[in-house]
Formats: sequence, structure tokens, C-alpha cells
Amino acid sequence: MRRIAVDAMGTDSAPEPEVAGAIEAARAGYAEVLLVGPQDRLSRELSQRKALGLPIRIVHASETITMGDKATKAFRQRRDSSIRVTARLVNEGKADGMISAGNTGAVMTTAKIVLGGLEGVDRPAIAQVFPTSKGTAAVLLDVGANVDCKPHHLVEFAVMGHTYYHVIFGMERPRIGLLSIGQEDQKGNELTRGALPLLRQLPLNFIGNVEGRDLYNGRVEVIVCDGFIGNVALKISEGLIEAISSLLKEALSSTLSSKVGYVLARKAFQNFKKRVDYSEYGGAPLLGVKGVCIICHGGSNTNAIKNAIRVAAEFSNGKVNEKIERELAAASRFGY
Amino acid sequence: MRRIAVDAMGTDSAPEPEVAGAIEAARAGYAEVLLVGPQDRLSRELSQRKALGLPIRIVHASETITMGDKATKAFRQRRDSSIRVTARLVNEGKADGMISAGNTGAVMTTAKIVLGGLEGVDRPAIAQVFPTSKGTAAVLLDVGANVDCKPHHLVEFAVMGHTYYHVIFGMERPRIGLLSIGQEDQKGNELTRGALPLLRQLPLNFIGNVEGRDLYNGRVEVIVCDGFIGNVALKISEGLIEAISSLLKEALSSTLSSKVGYVLARKAFQNFKKRVDYSEYGGAPLLGVKGVCIICHGGSNTNAIKNAIRVAAEFSNGKVNEKIERELAAASRFGY
Repeated sequence: MRRIAVDAMGTDSAPEPEVAGAIEAARAGYAEVLLVGPQDRLSRELSQRKALGLPIRIVHASETITMGDKATKAFRQRRDSSIRVTARLVNEGKADGMISAGNTGAVMTTAKIVLGGLEGVDRPAIAQVFPTSKGTAAVLLDVGANVDCKPHHLVEFAVMGHTYYHVIFGMERPRIGLLSIGQEDQKGNELTRGALPLLRQLPLNFIGNVEGRDLYNGRVEVIVCDGFIGNVALKISEGLIEAISSLLKEALSSTLSSKVGYVLARKAFQNFKKRVDYSEYGGAPLLGVKGVCIICHGGSNTNAIKNAIRVAAEFSNGKVNEKIERELAAASRFGY
Repeated sequence: MRRIAVDAMGTDSAPEPEVAGAIEAARAGYAEVLLVGPQDRLSRELSQRKALGLPIRIVHASETITMGDKATKAFRQRRDSSIRVTARLVNEGKADGMISAGNTGAVMTTAKIVLGGLEGVDRPAIAQVFPTSKGTAAVLLDVGANVDCKPHHLVEFAVMGHTYYHVIFGMERPRIGLLSIGQEDQKGNELTRGALPLLRQLPLNFIGNVEGRDLYNGRVEVIVCDGFIGNVALKISEGLIEAISSLLKEALSSTLSSKVGYVLARKAFQNFKKRVDYSEYGGAPLLGVKGVCIICHGGSNTNAIKNAIRVAAEFSNGKVNEKIERELAAASRFGY
């Protein structure tokens, strides 16, 4: 069984979701869990829950990094932070992967420095899974690790996205698109026009430029873009889903004069929210670092942590990193 | 009464939505309408509808530009296209504004060349209005006219967005944000870090960096960004709304075993769609050109065309362009 190190102090309501998620993941047999954080507090949390006999171990870390901390400064000054101890467990081979819902910048910085980059990867990237209206999943990368990308970075993202999708979703040749503002080759900006010919040379299923709407219509499985664009895309989506949820609730309760209809519609609404709920996909992997690093949303609940542990174990089982290095070496023979 | 020139051959199902929209706008007293396109066809369409006595006139144009045409080539080769004749009416003072739902690239190119740019405007920009969960409106620009912007272009966008919002929504000092990937000043890319200090110097209500989710939460009224980012943001939103609509319909009809609940919920759902329906806002203005140019979606219906005619008339009445030139001149005194 894989061992996954979990930063227990990352979420907004830490350590509850982490401890509960770890228990559920361990009970489901996803992995052996190393819970990283203050020993006393975590022992207390565990003993209050039915965790006896489960493969969960506490690893002490005396410090935490908060959302307000600057990533690089926090990394330098807090050598015993839960994020850093978690990464160290992976680097020392004591864990097969890590997850953290803490300060995203700090997790990225720590993972890049403590774990190091894969052979051939210039820029590790965060890959986010989106649900599509066809019921399939689409992966967008980078969603925030890298801004001001150069064309060859998008090539790395394509190879990493391809491999991740292949391993996690079992599709042999996922379709890969370049996020642009029109399907025609000449549409786009300096970056996309520079990346397009490089991407075409890859021995992958690259289908050319795609548009924003293709993220949700199932036309493509992997979409690559600069991290600034990807982050805006992610947050626009989150914002719109939030706005729609609240508008819809309002509209439903004001229209259905009898509350009967509301109760009937509620179940449908919950099903729908589950379909667009990112937590089902269990966090976003930082691709391109040595080892497995899954970054979760600060608002992650028990279910999200549980699923992130599952994804980390699958990632490790699937040997994603070995495959990325092999694919990148192959890609370099195609002129990249 | 203002005279608005309407390219009658722009929408996917032209000229029906244009003709019907023109009739509704004329009947509502929004404007006198000049319908531009093939004389015979438009006469027939008008005579089939109850348009007698309404202030609608046909202006003949023998050619059309389709979605597949290259913008600059179409501009050079089809001198009598409905888009070009429409723009010419504005340039010659025979109309106070124009609207077109045709090929966006062709409309932009034509408007920029035939109408020319305002004093002080280097790059005209398309401004799109979005609904927020607070019931207010937010304007995002640029959503597609300009890629690879420089910092000073975002300053022009801020001034134009401010003025447009002020005139159309009547708010004295709309809050202006710079679309980035975090609120802190150091978050962002080369473009946003370069634009931030310039925007701070403006005598406007600039609140700093905003994130993707702020487009929909009512935290800000005007958001400026590079046209590539804005276009991706717009299309991601359209795609997500489409996906959510179809998922929701599915969830509702599968959950509500009795169809009674579905019927009850449908009204709520329609209200909700109306709230997020861009057609209520009547197209997106191309800000920064001499004259008024409103660009509509190719899929515009009668209501969207009608509203676009209303917006064009309001734009002209509000002297948006004079105010933009004045504000830009003022801004230049603040070091821009």
C-alpha cells in the first residue's frame, strides 16, 4: 500500500477536514496516511474519532504557514512548517506522495525546492480537472504556477497533461488543445502562435487551437495555456458557479410559492452541484516535480481530502513521473 | 430621435432577427432605424411584418461578409458589404451609431478604418457587460479586439470603461479593477505589474488587482485586461453557462419522478436564465472609435438586436466619446 503524507494544517478549518479525510481514505484502503502537524493536537483529534487500527501515523511539525504569508519568506524562515515536513517525507522516501491544502504559493515553492524538478522539466505546472457537459473530464494546465510562459513551456505542459490524463483516466491518446481565441491557426497572441508549430511536431494527439468554451463541452481532454490565463479561467469558473448557485436558489424560492416544488427541485439541484463540484476530483497535481504533490483548495472538505489522497496514490501507482520523463525525452527527438 | 444604422445581414439567421429587432426598437421609440442590406429582400421582410408607419428605412448594400471570411481581405475586396455601408452611414453623419452581429473581426477592422480612432486612443477595445450575483452589472474590457497589450493600453481601457459605465449605468465613480491572479500588488504577470502603477495615478476610482471571481460577485464595476484574457474569460463563461444549463435540465428531469416539480421549477429556471442572459445587455460596444459601434453576438435574437439599438442610442445621447477624449486628456496630465 502506498504511503501518502498529508499536511494536516492546510485547510481553512484545519485540522478537522484533514483528519477526517485521512480516516476515510485509510478506511477505504486508498493508502497508509502520514498526518503532519502538531503531535498533541492531532493525537487528540484522532482519538476523538474511530481511527483505532487504521494505518494512520502522526509526524510532528511545530510550525504552520498561513494564507497571508509570503511563499519564499515562509519557506526560508519556517524550516519545521507542516508543508515543509510533508515535502521532506516524500524527498526522503518515507512517503510516496504528499497533499496540502495550504497557501498554494508556499506549497509550490516548497515542493519545487525540496522535491526538485523532473529531468527535462523547466517549469512544473498545476493541472486542474474540470467536469464537462458530456460527463467526461478535461484537464487544464497551467492554472497558476507559471506566468509569462514561453512557447516551449507549453510543450512541457502538453506532455505532462497527456501523461497525467492517460494514467488517471485511462485514455490512450487524449486530445490536446491550445487555449486561444479562435480555432484558426492565425488567431491568438504571440505565445500561442509561437507554441502552435512546436505542439504540432509532438507525437501526441494535438488538435490545434481551442476556445474557452471547449473547456466544458467535452471536445478536448487536455488544454494547455500560460498560468496567468489558466488561473483566471479557474477563478472565473468558480465565481460564476457561485453566482449561479445563489441566483438559482433565489429564483427557485421566489417562484415556487408552495415550497413543495422547492423540496422536489432541491434533490435535483444537489445532484447538479455534485457534478460540477471540483472536490470530487480531489485537488490539483503539481506536475513536473520529483515525487507526487497534490494541491488542494483551502476550502477543501473531508471528501476533497479523501479524494486527494486517492489521487496521490493512483498517481504514484501509475508511475506518472517516469512516463513524463520518457515522453519528454521522446518529444525532444521531434525537434522540441 | 437618434438614427441607428443596423447591419441586417450579420446574425446566423439574418435578416430575420435584425428586421424584427428593428421593428421592436422603432416601435418602442428607441431610435430611427436604417436597415442595411439587399433592398429587395429587406423590403419583402418588412412588408410581411406590421412595420407600416414606423421610422425604419432601408439602405441598399449588395454584398455580405460571412463568419468564414478573413477580416482584412473582406474589407479590401467587398466595398459594398453591409458592414461597410453601415459604418459609412455613421462616418458620413447619416447615422448616429451602428450595430452589427456579423463577423467580429470584420466589424472591428471596418469600424476602425472607416470611423477612425478617438483622439488619444491607441487601441479601441470591446467592452462586455456581465451580470453579477448582487444584481449589478460589471463591464470587462478588452474582450477580444487587442492581444499582446502594453501597460499603457490598459490605462486607455480603464478610462474608456469608466466613462462607458458612468454614462450607461449612471454611477459617478465606478470601481475599476485590474484582472490578475491575486489581490496583492506583486501578484500577476509582466503586463499587470507594469500597468498597476500607471492605473494608480489616474484620477479614477481604481481599487487595484482583482481576481477572476470578482467578475461575478459585484465587488467591482469595471475590469480591465488584455484582449486575449478577456476573450477567454467571456468564452469560458458562455461555455460554463451552457454546460450548467444542460446538466441542470438533465438533473431536474431525472430526479423529479412526477413531472409536477419540473413544471414548477421551470419558471424559476427561466427567470434565472434571463438574469444571466447577455442579450438583455444588447451587445458589446467597440469603445475608442469615432462614432458609436455596437458589436452583437452572431446568435443574437430579436431581443438582443432591439436592446443593442437602445444601447447605441443611449451611447450617442450620453456623448460617451466626447467624455472619453476629455478623460484621456485629463489622464495624460497625471503622468500617463
